[in-house]
Amino acid sequence: MSSAKKLGERKIIELIIECLDRMPNNPVPFGDDASAVDIGREKLAVVKTDMLVGKTDIPKSMSFLQAARKAVVMNLSDLAAKGAQPLALLASIGVPPNIKETDILQIGRGLNSGAREYGIYVLGGDINEASDLVISCVALGVCRKDYLIKRSGAKPGDYVAVTGLFGKTAAGLKILLEKLSAPEIEGELVNSVLMPKARVKEGLALARTKAATSSIDSSDGLAWSLHEISRASNVGFIIDDLPIASEAEKFAKIYNYDSVELALYGGEEYELLVTIKPKLWQQAKEAVERVGSSLMKVGQVTHDKRVLLKKDRKTFSVEARGWEHFKST
Amino acid sequence: MSSAKKLGERKIIELIIECLDRMPNNPVPFGDDASAVDIGREKLAVVKTDMLVGKTDIPKSMSFLQAARKAVVMNLSDLAAKGAQPLALLASIGVPPNIKETDILQIGRGLNSGAREYGIYVLGGDINEASDLVISCVALGVCRKDYLIKRSGAKPGDYVAVTGLFGKTAAGLKILLEKLSAPEIEGELVNSVLMPKARVKEGLALARTKAATSSIDSSDGLAWSLHEISRASNVGFIIDDLPIASEAEKFAKIYNYDSVELALYGGEEYELLVTIKPKLWQQAKEAVERVGSSLMKVGQVTHDKRVLLKKDRKTFSVEARGWEHFKST
Repeated sequence: MSSAKKLGERKIIELIIECLDRMPNNPVPFGDDASAVDIGREKLAVVKTDMLVGKTDIPKSMSFLQAARKAVVMNLSDLAAKGAQPLALLASIGVPPNIKETDILQIGRGLNSGAREYGIYVLGGDINEASDLVISCVALGVCRKDYLIKRSGAKPGDYVAVTGLFGKTAAGLKILLEKLSAPEIEGELVNSVLMPKARVKEGLALARTKAATSSIDSSDGLAWSLHEISRASNVGFIIDDLPIASEAEKFAKIYNYDSVELALYGGEEYELLVTIKPKLWQQAKEAVERVGSSLMKVGQVTHDKRVLLKKDRKTFSVEARGWEHFKST
Repeated sequence: MSSAKKLGERKIIELIIECLDRMPNNPVPFGDDASAVDIGREKLAVVKTDMLVGKTDIPKSMSFLQAARKAVVMNLSDLAAKGAQPLALLASIGVPPNIKETDILQIGRGLNSGAREYGIYVLGGDINEASDLVISCVALGVCRKDYLIKRSGAKPGDYVAVTGLFGKTAAGLKILLEKLSAPEIEGELVNSVLMPKARVKEGLALARTKAATSSIDSSDGLAWSLHEISRASNVGFIIDDLPIASEAEKFAKIYNYDSVELALYGGEEYELLVTIKPKLWQQAKEAVERVGSSLMKVGQVTHDKRVLLKKDRKTFSVEARGWEHFKST
């Protein structure tokens, strides 16, 4: 009999989904960033829950405060990708018996600070004993039915766009895990891992323009996220302007890494990856700029279902790989 | 520095709550059964998340299917206590690396069956690697603002009532953990532990009558739940008709246990404990009967803040103890 390690996270999710009855008229299909349910008057409640596990998800140099804050951010990021307005946060926490009082206070402060950064409050939750530290947050939001952006609406010809540059978290994680040094850029790279940000106001601004045909947060890595949209929308991509952070480029140069690898296959980045109707590109771009951020065109949606990268006049195939638990590849 | 084992679950919750900013006009204070947020038009979204941890919460004889189903039921029970209509369920699951494919399928089926029993669907969630099996469910519901029943509204003179009899789970757990035998009643007692039920339709029926002044689910035990209402409402109780299940009485007789102990200090029972305006008692009772259950008057709310039990013409003090993690008392 297969064990979790052999099956991998995604196969386990498939197995569980097979057991579940389907809600008629589900506004968001299984496997999208968040779930939604009709609450009447053309509104949806949008809910997300995701768990941070000490052993596998928290690098040693991340404080309890940062870990708890990140547990909040990663859930809000999924609401952001759907264009939902966050309303409230809950946290269900498993703590090992030997945890210290100061650590518990840090967890409380991290949860609170994560929620308050995005204008909401922690309203409740629960504490349990567990072998690992486990922080399972719930983000609840609300969204107008006609604003919700699924993974499944991308159309050939749409522009592909992102809300930020890639590669910093992959480099930052290498610095933390392999104890590498890169004096001038180290702070920025490590900070991208320890203090991620959710693109909540950007997601809301985009939703209001109705310019986005699909959306996902890039937490599983840019490559994986492109493949997710490809699967859900039955389209492909040509990425001709891969947005790599200058710090990631510098880091790659120092340690002889491929910066494209860092940008594509990193993960734990919480940018939005969206497809935009070309006619509404200007509105979408300006809407994101009005909230103080930028929306960068990085490529185009294609009929051909492959995910391709054009760089230096060459074309590469972008693999469907990223961060996956259990599988030790 | 104190560790979790020394602090106990409730002190840890207090420490975390101290760190949290308070949402203005929070419809439900911290520490109530569930959390709520205004979604406009006189409605509240009511949310609950609670975690089932393999090592501490799942007796060995409970199957993965039963454990997953229970993780659903315990969250729905808290919505029920607030008078909220369940809308959707999410589950965030941590699985140990050595879990088998058949176990995963059982978890999926248990989640689905728990949700479908109460007319809702599992809409999403997440899988993670963890040392223990951890099933963290999220129940989302909706409630009219004027229907929501908090822990804090009990008034002296109100009737105290419950939706079922007590003592079976305490006896059932003893059978499971201490491998006791009680042929004729064993099945029923063990079943109360393995297949708990949430009083969802009873909670909804009660909410609509507006007869209940306070409500809590009895999952931490009847005694503890009485003390929780006492604290939140600043009242006391005289319980003069303790509702003990006949199977618990029989079990107590066989093994020379005190059946009152079993009924008061058991826990993992998901009955509703409510206080009812005397003038609306008949309406409340009939409303619960119309959905096929019963509401039993067990005592009265008092000014005096003690929780007292009258039995056989004697008066006992009901202690504020029940099931608590970490503390090995």
